[in-house]
Amino acid sequence: MDLLQDAIKKLQVKPGEHIKLKERDPRDKCGFEDEVKTEAQTAIIAQEIDQLQDRLYAEGKRALLVVLQGMDTAGKDGTIRGVFNTTGPIGIAVTAFRQPTENELAHDFLWRAHAACPRRGTIGIFNRSHYEDVLVAKVRGFAPKDAIEQRYEQINAFEKTLIENGTVILKFMLHISKKEQAERLQERLDNPKKHWKFNPGDLEDRKLWDEFEDAYETMLHRCSTKWAPWYLIPADRKWVRNAAIAGVVQATLEDMNPHYPQVSWKPTDFKIV
Amino acid sequence: MDLLQDAIKKLQVKPGEHIKLKERDPRDKCGFEDEVKTEAQTAIIAQEIDQLQDRLYAEGKRALLVVLQGMDTAGKDGTIRGVFNTTGPIGIAVTAFRQPTENELAHDFLWRAHAACPRRGTIGIFNRSHYEDVLVAKVRGFAPKDAIEQRYEQINAFEKTLIENGTVILKFMLHISKKEQAERLQERLDNPKKHWKFNPGDLEDRKLWDEFEDAYETMLHRCSTKWAPWYLIPADRKWVRNAAIAGVVQATLEDMNPHYPQVSWKPTDFKIV
Repeated sequence: MDLLQDAIKKLQVKPGEHIKLKERDPRDKCGFEDEVKTEAQTAIIAQEIDQLQDRLYAEGKRALLVVLQGMDTAGKDGTIRGVFNTTGPIGIAVTAFRQPTENELAHDFLWRAHAACPRRGTIGIFNRSHYEDVLVAKVRGFAPKDAIEQRYEQINAFEKTLIENGTVILKFMLHISKKEQAERLQERLDNPKKHWKFNPGDLEDRKLWDEFEDAYETMLHRCSTKWAPWYLIPADRKWVRNAAIAGVVQATLEDMNPHYPQVSWKPTDFKIV
Repeated sequence: MDLLQDAIKKLQVKPGEHIKLKERDPRDKCGFEDEVKTEAQTAIIAQEIDQLQDRLYAEGKRALLVVLQGMDTAGKDGTIRGVFNTTGPIGIAVTAFRQPTENELAHDFLWRAHAACPRRGTIGIFNRSHYEDVLVAKVRGFAPKDAIEQRYEQINAFEKTLIENGTVILKFMLHISKKEQAERLQERLDNPKKHWKFNPGDLEDRKLWDEFEDAYETMLHRCSTKWAPWYLIPADRKWVRNAAIAGVVQATLEDMNPHYPQVSWKPTDFKIV
């Protein structure tokens, strides 16, 4: 547990920190040594998350928002499966942020994110998020530079509002290497069961790897706040990624320590006939 | 499996059938004999549902809507836990229909149900549903009688539209006895961890047991259609309830038989550099 707490601290991006992604090792093991043992521990932690979620739901006062970002194939879906499959669907909602619709584009960029925020008592998972608007939008020039420049502070203010109103936010950047992405894309080509996951457009994004890396670095630098820090997760090894994220989620929920609510009546007030 | 198919057929309410709930036994075992063995089988079926859901998600063309209705304490939450906890949250969304908000009441009664329908590739679970508008709304007189009278056909037309556009609908009425409800309410009073689940208003509904039973019978009679039949599930025994519903869900998904989609390209079209 101390090891975990240490590992968690190391994963946090400090407010104002300038991280160079090329200097970080996506194959780092975060202190986890044995794959089989770690996966077994993660499965236990996943069950503990389920239990904590039940208490969060019963309490009904606060929410947890988990933001997952990363290059294509970084393992956003895999993280949800590895960490949250054990958590019952009653108190959890996953929102995949796809290309914005015409209606979504007719609003400010935070509109759809706000609408998808978890209701009190639940965990919301953003598979991609409002951060796409300072990532792909920046690299591909979907919005004017000035507008994107303003978005970092707008995001920080938005997240501060969420926090102050009872939503704890965990933001995970799944950091994979360009080499690992090549292997995962190739696997999608080689395995007919994964063909549907392959999007030829991903290759276009891959050509802009360095530009995306720059955009991620700026995002980490400007939007890792003390109220909603980013966690930089080495993600080339799926079992390390799952273990690290499960650990942070569990520690966060334990820290929130949700309670079964007090009721305003005594059991003896009622007689069931 | 034949036993299951037989059991499933027996649970279906035939279109136009008049069911008297007092003549149905909520403690019926539906052909399941051994509790421990049945629970083990249900756990296996839950895993198969998870696998089938993955294929549904990959296919991305059709959806499954599961409607859960029943008196207070009938086990709607418990069903979701017992049948769907194994299904990953990526492809499943639970909507609890609470007392309508002012905004929801400013629209027709199907508006919020339609908005909550599952997107293609996913399973949507309605914990309560648009049927509340012919149940509590009828018993409590929340809408004029004429308006409620029209709703049965409106619901049938709405569900037909969903079906014709790729959403399969399963509707389960969880049928408990008045005696079982008393025990479950008492348990919520006796167990401090369940206090938050106890709503004094439930006792008011309990006083109207017969009126609710009437409303349920009318609903089953008028809204069990050949495109979206109701299933009447004996629900006094939780393990029977879970086994029956898991069996129907699994058989339905197997019948839908979702396929990994064909792609318009050949793996050799691409070279990953």
